[in-house]
Amino acid sequence: MAESDADGVVYLVGSGPGDPDLLTVKAHRLLTEADVVLHDKLPGPEILGLIPDEKREDVGKRAGGDRTSQEYTNDRLVELAHEGNVVVRLKGGDPFVFGRGGEEAEHLAANDVPFEVVPGVTSAVAGPAVAGIPVTHRDHASSVTFVTGHEDPTKEESAVDWHALAATGGTLVVLMGVGKLPDYTAELREAGMSGETPVALVERATWPDQRVATGTLADIVEVRDREDISPPAITVVGDVAATRETLAAFLRNGTDEAFDATEVGEE
Amino acid sequence: MAESDADGVVYLVGSGPGDPDLLTVKAHRLLTEADVVLHDKLPGPEILGLIPDEKREDVGKRAGGDRTSQEYTNDRLVELAHEGNVVVRLKGGDPFVFGRGGEEAEHLAANDVPFEVVPGVTSAVAGPAVAGIPVTHRDHASSVTFVTGHEDPTKEESAVDWHALAATGGTLVVLMGVGKLPDYTAELREAGMSGETPVALVERATWPDQRVATGTLADIVEVRDREDISPPAITVVGDVAATRETLAAFLRNGTDEAFDATEVGEE
Ligand SMILES: C[S@@+](CC[C@H](N)C(=O)[O-])C[C@H]1O[C@@H](n2cnc3c(N)ncnc32)[C@H](O)[C@@H]1O
Ligand SMILES: C[S@@+](CC[C@H](N)C(=O)[O-])C[C@H]1O[C@@H](n2cnc3c(N)ncnc32)[C@H](O)[C@@H]1O
Repeated sequence: MAESDADGVVYLVGSGPGDPDLLTVKAHRLLTEADVVLHDKLPGPEILGLIPDEKREDVGKRAGGDRTSQEYTNDRLVELAHEGNVVVRLKGGDPFVFGRGGEEAEHLAANDVPFEVVPGVTSAVAGPAVAGIPVTHRDHASSVTFVTGHEDPTKEESAVDWHALAATGGTLVVLMGVGKLPDYTAELREAGMSGETPVALVERATWPDQRVATGTLADIVEVRDREDISPPAITVVGDVAATRETLAAFLRNGTDEAFDATEVGEE
Repeated sequence: MAESDADGVVYLVGSGPGDPDLLTVKAHRLLTEADVVLHDKLPGPEILGLIPDEKREDVGKRAGGDRTSQEYTNDRLVELAHEGNVVVRLKGGDPFVFGRGGEEAEHLAANDVPFEVVPGVTSAVAGPAVAGIPVTHRDHASSVTFVTGHEDPTKEESAVDWHALAATGGTLVVLMGVGKLPDYTAELREAGMSGETPVALVERATWPDQRVATGTLADIVEVRDREDISPPAITVVGDVAATRETLAAFLRNGTDEAFDATEVGEE
């Protein structure tokens, strides 16, 4: 590790959705060039396996609530940078898409730590894509919204207005949305979206055991339960989700399991 | 080039926003391993410079309207694949974010051409990020919407409901939104968004001549004109756009020009 105070820097780096081939060239290089890599579990086993053991620091497995863990991470980043290290903070997908990257950047700036953002391929785009679902489409969707399905429980009012989201007419991509799927699908139907609206669930997108399950706003909860879809997974709601049916036979992404899961989901 | 019909395949590849370091490992490899690379101008000069000359085919500079060009591209992809080539269709950012990748995939499937999607870093996330703007933030934005500022003129009704977008309360990221900035900022204000809402324009994000200009919903058109912001650029509307002010002094991304442009925009 470097000794000088002046040289410390933090790279807030996106790992992409999990396939090491979807790391950026820069992220890939930084994983071996950094002095320390702070990570949690989301980048997935294949990418975490690329980090030299002596550089890895897992900040995801700490006990205690989410807040404790985030404060620990913030402080550890500053500490390591002040010691003069080149620090990589590795985050699944893109660091600024529901990744708390913004909060970490603010903490670094408040503590005089220079940092650089290294954007990554977000699972919100890549998850649907590798399942054959374009999040926008000239004929079906002029907008796409990424939204959290797992609202911050410390907020007094719900910050997510599902009725407004339904009214956009565009594609909805829900992150952290497996557990509360029954709640927000019900809200979207109340807001006037048809029960026939196509929905897809993409579990562990680009991981070796990726699975895709499809249904409609009316039956996707049942599909989730039958297929036992678990986090991390992306929920795609909108007409574009049906594109998968047209494309699947010629789409080379994904595994055989993925196709099997889909067929069940579509039965 | 390969001879056999059976071996042809098309990779729909995202180039990222322009910095070659933000290509994915896979995209980088495919640029030299493919038999042919079909591209337009959006990937930017640095990335296009990585493609061996004898493999490059520019489908962006063809004369005629957009539709002619898209039909030509669709047919050329099928033709090259049927000849047995490993074809890369390189698109700026991510191929499925306002990139017509969905239409190209449908055309390939309809013509029995196997294809693989290689997601990329979208400018809709990376553009704001390298300017110090996280598109989501626990305190400021529980959703982010990407929307086109340049509606398909062949559509009979406007497919973009700016009032519904304003009502989401989340960050809005407008692509292809330089020319129509006066129209949609007016619509957003009519929909009740405050004239004080922070707005940032990120021009040629991650290119060597990246520029950032900031203002508010009320004055951003004036800022655009004074700074002569031109496409390609990203418009970010929402409280997160103000994060740049807090972060800029410690943010290592971007060039000196970027910081100058910002100061002018914020005067
Ligand atoms: C805290 S958010 C972080 C998102 C991340 N920053 C990104 O850009 O992909 C975690 C959520 O991302 C989604 N996610 C991340 N990686 C995924 C993957 N490989 N497959 C499916 N969903 C994924 C899931 O919805 C998960 O609950
Ligand atoms: C046809 S859309 C394609 C978007 C692309 N597929 C993506 O994911 O970034 C073209 C628009 O993308 C945005 N864009 C692409 N690259 C950009 C860059 N390097 N800087 C700023 N905006 C960019 C601009 O809004 C531009 O008008």
